[in-house]
Amino acid sequence: MSTNPTIIRTKASDNVGIVTSELGLSTGTVIVDGAVLLQDIPMGHKVALSEIKENAAVIRYGETIGYATSSIRAGEWVQESKISLPLPPDIDSIALPDGKRQKPQPLEGYDFQGYRNPDGSVGTKNVLGITTSVQCVAGLTQYAAKRIKRDLLPKYRNVDDVVALNHTYGCGVAINAPTAIIPIRTIQNITLNPNFGGELMVIGLGCEKLRPDWLTPDNDTSNILYMQDEAFHGFSEMIDGVLLMAELHLKKLNQRKRETCAASELVVGMQCGGSDSFVGLTANPAAGFAADLIVRAGGSVMFSEVTEVRDAVHLLVPRTINAEVGRALLDQMKWYDDYLRQGQADRSANPSPGNKRGGLSNVVEKALGSIVKSGTSPIVDVLGPGEKIRRKGLTFLATPASDFVCGTLQLSAGMNLHVFMTGRGTPYGLPMVPVIKVGSNSKLSNRWFDLIDLDAGPIATGEKTTEEVGWELFHLILDVASGKKQVACDKLGLHNDLVLFNPGPLT
Amino acid sequence: MSTNPTIIRTKASDNVGIVTSELGLSTGTVIVDGAVLLQDIPMGHKVALSEIKENAAVIRYGETIGYATSSIRAGEWVQESKISLPLPPDIDSIALPDGKRQKPQPLEGYDFQGYRNPDGSVGTKNVLGITTSVQCVAGLTQYAAKRIKRDLLPKYRNVDDVVALNHTYGCGVAINAPTAIIPIRTIQNITLNPNFGGELMVIGLGCEKLRPDWLTPDNDTSNILYMQDEAFHGFSEMIDGVLLMAELHLKKLNQRKRETCAASELVVGMQCGGSDSFVGLTANPAAGFAADLIVRAGGSVMFSEVTEVRDAVHLLVPRTINAEVGRALLDQMKWYDDYLRQGQADRSANPSPGNKRGGLSNVVEKALGSIVKSGTSPIVDVLGPGEKIRRKGLTFLATPASDFVCGTLQLSAGMNLHVFMTGRGTPYGLPMVPVIKVGSNSKLSNRWFDLIDLDAGPIATGEKTTEEVGWELFHLILDVASGKKQVACDKLGLHNDLVLFNPGPLT
Repeated sequence: MSTNPTIIRTKASDNVGIVTSELGLSTGTVIVDGAVLLQDIPMGHKVALSEIKENAAVIRYGETIGYATSSIRAGEWVQESKISLPLPPDIDSIALPDGKRQKPQPLEGYDFQGYRNPDGSVGTKNVLGITTSVQCVAGLTQYAAKRIKRDLLPKYRNVDDVVALNHTYGCGVAINAPTAIIPIRTIQNITLNPNFGGELMVIGLGCEKLRPDWLTPDNDTSNILYMQDEAFHGFSEMIDGVLLMAELHLKKLNQRKRETCAASELVVGMQCGGSDSFVGLTANPAAGFAADLIVRAGGSVMFSEVTEVRDAVHLLVPRTINAEVGRALLDQMKWYDDYLRQGQADRSANPSPGNKRGGLSNVVEKALGSIVKSGTSPIVDVLGPGEKIRRKGLTFLATPASDFVCGTLQLSAGMNLHVFMTGRGTPYGLPMVPVIKVGSNSKLSNRWFDLIDLDAGPIATGEKTTEEVGWELFHLILDVASGKKQVACDKLGLHNDLVLFNPGPLT
Repeated sequence: MSTNPTIIRTKASDNVGIVTSELGLSTGTVIVDGAVLLQDIPMGHKVALSEIKENAAVIRYGETIGYATSSIRAGEWVQESKISLPLPPDIDSIALPDGKRQKPQPLEGYDFQGYRNPDGSVGTKNVLGITTSVQCVAGLTQYAAKRIKRDLLPKYRNVDDVVALNHTYGCGVAINAPTAIIPIRTIQNITLNPNFGGELMVIGLGCEKLRPDWLTPDNDTSNILYMQDEAFHGFSEMIDGVLLMAELHLKKLNQRKRETCAASELVVGMQCGGSDSFVGLTANPAAGFAADLIVRAGGSVMFSEVTEVRDAVHLLVPRTINAEVGRALLDQMKWYDDYLRQGQADRSANPSPGNKRGGLSNVVEKALGSIVKSGTSPIVDVLGPGEKIRRKGLTFLATPASDFVCGTLQLSAGMNLHVFMTGRGTPYGLPMVPVIKVGSNSKLSNRWFDLIDLDAGPIATGEKTTEEVGWELFHLILDVASGKKQVACDKLGLHNDLVLFNPGPLT
């Protein structure tokens, strides 16, 4: 990466660079290769480093992000309107890998203080979760969680939180529609998240389609309480019932103790949201470096967001460990292409206006910057939305790019730690799993000093290298996983609800 | 309606009756027309009142709910398996009305104490609403609402509540997909709900697709606050900004005063959920009677739930005031048929298992019982999901039957009072608008004494007539609209979130 204090060019073949100066750059500034800025260009936006002829490729990250709609002079601002969107990589013509991928070099000696669970998984928080088999019950679980926090939680010092895992799945979801399996398995797998320590409660209504015993391991029914249970005379008796059951679980959770666990027990979900042009230069490369460290330490990393990898999938397939995994990745892309087509939408719906104002011209550029967070490790597995992680190493979990939905699916896949990169800034946070927020630029990180956990901005200014920030992130992950450091959103109590992915119809 | 203490037959042509006795009826019991029960039949289930030959119509509400799959003897339990599902009414062969509908007989002299708004609408509660242009902000609005309630609300005695109108609309929704208009206009119209008195706040992120000024009347921007506003240094300054803005609105809301408003200012949304066989016999007929009273008093009533009127639409089209409204109703049915087909689902996904255990065999029977809540008034208008009510009288608002989604859409259409009928029991409740819960059977109403506001059960036992309970409901509506009586879910603070209808894809 050739760095200049004010412009970044990622690969030598790039014919555009990114303005990294907070105030942007003014006309006349001399930049790389002696080119002179022909106009003012704001931070995060692209400048042509050499002349780009009409219809010639605009190259960033060493890849074509589009074609010049008219000739662009060196020093000109390369705005969205000057780049035509190329076709996405043709799925049928991408060669599957030959299976000869090098194993990552092992990294030893890193551990964290986690909660080891009976099923072998390791938690990073100690949370009493209350899930529901139907959205009708959401009012009660909300109410109950508040009461448990007020009346019981103070007695159980080792328990971090009580969380109602509310969702919008209900009998209105056509349960026999082929895609209904997605929200159903999502809710099921969320209950297995290591941070709940197997002590989850299920509140049912009593007449729903999705049976509450589908939400407990081995169809155990001792954790289930039905509102329609005739034993309850009125709401306050129901709440008494919930409190009684909660106390049993709190007692057990309270006995959980942190112990030394190898870094190989980390299951980290990587996501970005509210991206700008910097995310792909600073935060995502640092996250990718940290992802590689976790994989080298024997841990698990997930990355996701189908529409944000779709245009870079030709770079990912060669990284899959064998033809089967490569094909699974392409199958997920195809499924999503069809899903969007059916809704008469396409990938151009992404990026958002915020992304664009941040300098991202189109979804190709966004994708190239997005996949960087996966690092360089081999992709060992591909999961559909709502599926649970199966292998150590780097997994692609197919999800929408929509932040809350992606986070919900990574949670259900079993992450015990979440890393969230942002450039424009979003207050994203989950109560079940610590969310480390990485700012892509110092302007945001400084302004949002109490919302951003780690500033990757110094990479853009050359004050720090990607490797340095990557190591910082890795150590922060271990500290947060150990409960030694609290993330910003947990300090504030700033959390959002889960959002299910339900591609099927409502009745 | 021919009533026997233990069996109800709605129309003389019915060849099935409904067991109304709480404990069910035992083999050997002599019922209507001298028929003898051939087996034990639980409460809410159907008994054949005369022999029904194989393939003959099974008739309830004077309508065919299906055909006997094999011969059924008088006194036999008519279970779901014994009835084949008929085809839905053929949309293209339903005759449009001739426009000669009688005007309802005026009902005068009823009023309530409401909050009259500058735009002419009338509120029944006085609520500070905080909406968002993007789901990213949900964590902050939740947090802010709590702080406002704790720090400011106690100073403003006339304000009932502070509510974060959180939703899951975000940049992940393909904004250019044809159906994206549905969630967008829903969020827009919610801001106009009369209970917010035009004093709604909008919190934006600052980089979203849906511009926050789309959520304020006349694109007024003075009510908007952006998290990404560079004036805010950190989260706590954002919250200070929200509190400052909230105080301005609370001051104005605090000056609102209830005044006498004619019953014609009522805008009542009728919905049922968690239905049993009784809902169509007790709660819905009483609601229908009350709906007629409101319409006669010049007010507005909405009913909804497409999949639950689809099979009875041939009974509704003749009630529309002209061919245009009739066609609009059929168009909504067609749209939904296509929508379900595209998701490879169909109307048989409704009823739910709870409905079935409650005695409802299929969606035809459910629909016939469901439309009863619309009363007998002419249907003056038909709205698509997310549209705002335009006319006084009875309107059909096309929505999914899913409770939270239907309620959200009725809220956005402008209801100032919600009536919710239930048989199995659901803790449904909204904080923005009072929700009156009507129980369809006394067994439920007694058990859920602190969750159900009105028991329609005595209609089944013959202790009260439909008219009596209908008048009770009408008076209760006026009292609740006046703030004289508090509904059960408000007393408990038992409320659920809004759920948007987004038929389009997520990116």
